[in-house]
Amino acid sequence: MSLIIKNGTILTMESDTPQFYKTDIGIKGNRIVFIGDIPSDFTVITEIDAKGKVILPGLINSHSHIAMSLFRHYADDLPFWTWLNDRIIPLEEKLTGEDVYGGSILSIAEMIRSGITTFADMYFFMDDIAKAVSETGIRANLSRGLVFNASRDIKKLETSVELFHKWNDGEDGRIKIDLGPHAPYTCAPEYLKKVAKTAEKLNTGIHIHIAESRREVEEIYSLYKKSPVEYVRDCGIFENRTYAAHCVKVTDDDIAILAKNNVSVMNNPGSNLKFGNGFAPVSKMLDAGINVSLGTDGPASNNNLNMFEEMNLTALVNKAADHSPTSVPAYTALQMATINGAKALGIDKDTGSIKVGKKADIIIIDMDKPHFYPKFNIVSSLVYAAQASDVCTVICDGRLLMSGRKLLTIDEADACRRADLLASNIISLNQ
Amino acid sequence: MSLIIKNGTILTMESDTPQFYKTDIGIKGNRIVFIGDIPSDFTVITEIDAKGKVILPGLINSHSHIAMSLFRHYADDLPFWTWLNDRIIPLEEKLTGEDVYGGSILSIAEMIRSGITTFADMYFFMDDIAKAVSETGIRANLSRGLVFNASRDIKKLETSVELFHKWNDGEDGRIKIDLGPHAPYTCAPEYLKKVAKTAEKLNTGIHIHIAESRREVEEIYSLYKKSPVEYVRDCGIFENRTYAAHCVKVTDDDIAILAKNNVSVMNNPGSNLKFGNGFAPVSKMLDAGINVSLGTDGPASNNNLNMFEEMNLTALVNKAADHSPTSVPAYTALQMATINGAKALGIDKDTGSIKVGKKADIIIIDMDKPHFYPKFNIVSSLVYAAQASDVCTVICDGRLLMSGRKLLTIDEADACRRADLLASNIISLNQ
Repeated sequence: MSLIIKNGTILTMESDTPQFYKTDIGIKGNRIVFIGDIPSDFTVITEIDAKGKVILPGLINSHSHIAMSLFRHYADDLPFWTWLNDRIIPLEEKLTGEDVYGGSILSIAEMIRSGITTFADMYFFMDDIAKAVSETGIRANLSRGLVFNASRDIKKLETSVELFHKWNDGEDGRIKIDLGPHAPYTCAPEYLKKVAKTAEKLNTGIHIHIAESRREVEEIYSLYKKSPVEYVRDCGIFENRTYAAHCVKVTDDDIAILAKNNVSVMNNPGSNLKFGNGFAPVSKMLDAGINVSLGTDGPASNNNLNMFEEMNLTALVNKAADHSPTSVPAYTALQMATINGAKALGIDKDTGSIKVGKKADIIIIDMDKPHFYPKFNIVSSLVYAAQASDVCTVICDGRLLMSGRKLLTIDEADACRRADLLASNIISLNQ
Repeated sequence: MSLIIKNGTILTMESDTPQFYKTDIGIKGNRIVFIGDIPSDFTVITEIDAKGKVILPGLINSHSHIAMSLFRHYADDLPFWTWLNDRIIPLEEKLTGEDVYGGSILSIAEMIRSGITTFADMYFFMDDIAKAVSETGIRANLSRGLVFNASRDIKKLETSVELFHKWNDGEDGRIKIDLGPHAPYTCAPEYLKKVAKTAEKLNTGIHIHIAESRREVEEIYSLYKKSPVEYVRDCGIFENRTYAAHCVKVTDDDIAILAKNNVSVMNNPGSNLKFGNGFAPVSKMLDAGINVSLGTDGPASNNNLNMFEEMNLTALVNKAADHSPTSVPAYTALQMATINGAKALGIDKDTGSIKVGKKADIIIIDMDKPHFYPKFNIVSSLVYAAQASDVCTVICDGRLLMSGRKLLTIDEADACRRADLLASNIISLNQ
């Protein structure tokens, strides 16, 4: 593949303030080989005209459970524990690998259509999710969700290790395998310690939920007289590259611990709002030097995989929560959705910004819509006015995944129909 | 015009819980003439196939300043008073009727593309906005913004009365003229009293901002030892049909006063969040029996005119602010965006729901997108997953305004180009 994107306005996300370049980008194989004048030895095979359009690095959805799209719109406006215990878990118990594969294909279709080129996922039947990632051309950090219950824990950790050896760095590096201890309230101390040691041995990262709700904080405190952050730290998890979802109910001390240990935090505003959990202290965490990225969480609690919505939410909601219209400005939200996500997943050498030598994960936004006029400020436009449907072209690892809003690696109609059928079957098994 | 919409799933918004009908809708002239079997005397001229699609009443944007689209993306991430006094007002002082017309056409294009068939607007050069409404086929309640400053006040009120006589009930009832005293902090008591009496004489409604920010509450209290709500009530405004934007900083007593006086409240979550003003107590107001509707506010403080985003925001944000995942459920958000808006504007006999005898203000949503699968719950889909771009067909007053996402009454490319040019000219005059 040798591809050139011409005449667009490039927002590289390489610097701390927005920098734009009106020039061409060249891609050879899966890498960006030039930005600027075409080198004499570059042979163009495919040319994309991006005149009047904006070019961004692909968005990074740094926390999700994508196969839960099968339960999307099935249980809404409910308390978290009713949602989880009465509605979701009974369905999850019926899931097969085929279901998880079908749900994943549906979600990857939606993510590509929304400009997402990388996602991080914690779930089960991860082999089937890896297969979906392999086939569709998207990039992913995958973690088998680990819950300590009776004797199944060891097996799950063994499965994670097998998954690592089978898939890590697979598909020319598109797939990474991390470990996924679910949360403080579902993992006992000895278990977390074992996971920490295993991650160290594999030299891989850890994906975990921390301090999502008040109830979690109370439970952990009553068990260990510690905050969830302290508890996880004391089990040695933070000795590894750790990326922690939510961190809604964290104290100033917790924030200092996360910062000191270089833990990345994935902010999931849609999900945190929908469950009534509240507002993660994003500004405080950023000020403390924490790398804060953005995620959609699972589509059963959001209910979409739309990073434009999450960027909009984090920029808006934190202003209100902080009583300050200057909190989380638009460019910060864009950083959270791109380069910060790459840092959280340990892949910022390869993706998260547009730079010569990085993998070509690139999206193109069609700005020729009424909500983008007048053309004053591209960054504001992208965060405060854009819709996911404004993404017209998606390239991941140098390969075109969407062109003119048509998916090139997924049969979209078939993905929708199949997911609908799989979901109906699961529901009927549950009745 | 004699039009039939066949095979769709109709969500009428006529009842307190979601009711769906899989049947046909007939439109003759500007009214819905049947829902169900085609009467023998009905001659179909235009037929729309809505198979697999959802049919809703057109959305109602009950608070905006649409011509401010000219300043969209021009001043973001700033404190409210810097935004208003240093950035927006200097530009507004340079506006001409031609500018306001151009900004209005751009915004109406965006609104139609987002499924909005009615909007309420408070601004100036209202004659030019009325002209844009007249030409484009959308429905609107328009109010000349009234601010008491020196001798210009009387003239503005006179202009409002002229506007009323010229346009009220114009275009076969599509245009209504209300009075628009801007806010407690910009209108002195004698002036508000005069406005109240004038509204009574004209038998029309009053569109006002109340209790948007803490600063307003403090200012009004220091002047009158009253809350903004009490101040406006005591000037006699509530003797008329009143719809009040924002009401973010209201006490329980204020809520009781609003309820007792049948004042409608327009919730503007996007704008309230963006300025850091906080969270209007939507659940409390609904529980008190207040008619709460939804609005985008002006596109210079949002930055779009997207009621799907506002529905999503009000459903999500109030759950977090109330610490309750059952607050403002999806159907309530849909009611706020449709029938409650019609009630606020005094036009619920004609619009806001799909009912035989009402005006035909109808939108069709294309549900054949990955984010709508599986097909469990249409209401959740519309509020928690939909994008404005999922609207495929828009009918207002029996007339097709958009079909297959193509605008039929506006040259969209020309509207965008013209607005860009007008905005650039205003900026250059300001330099």
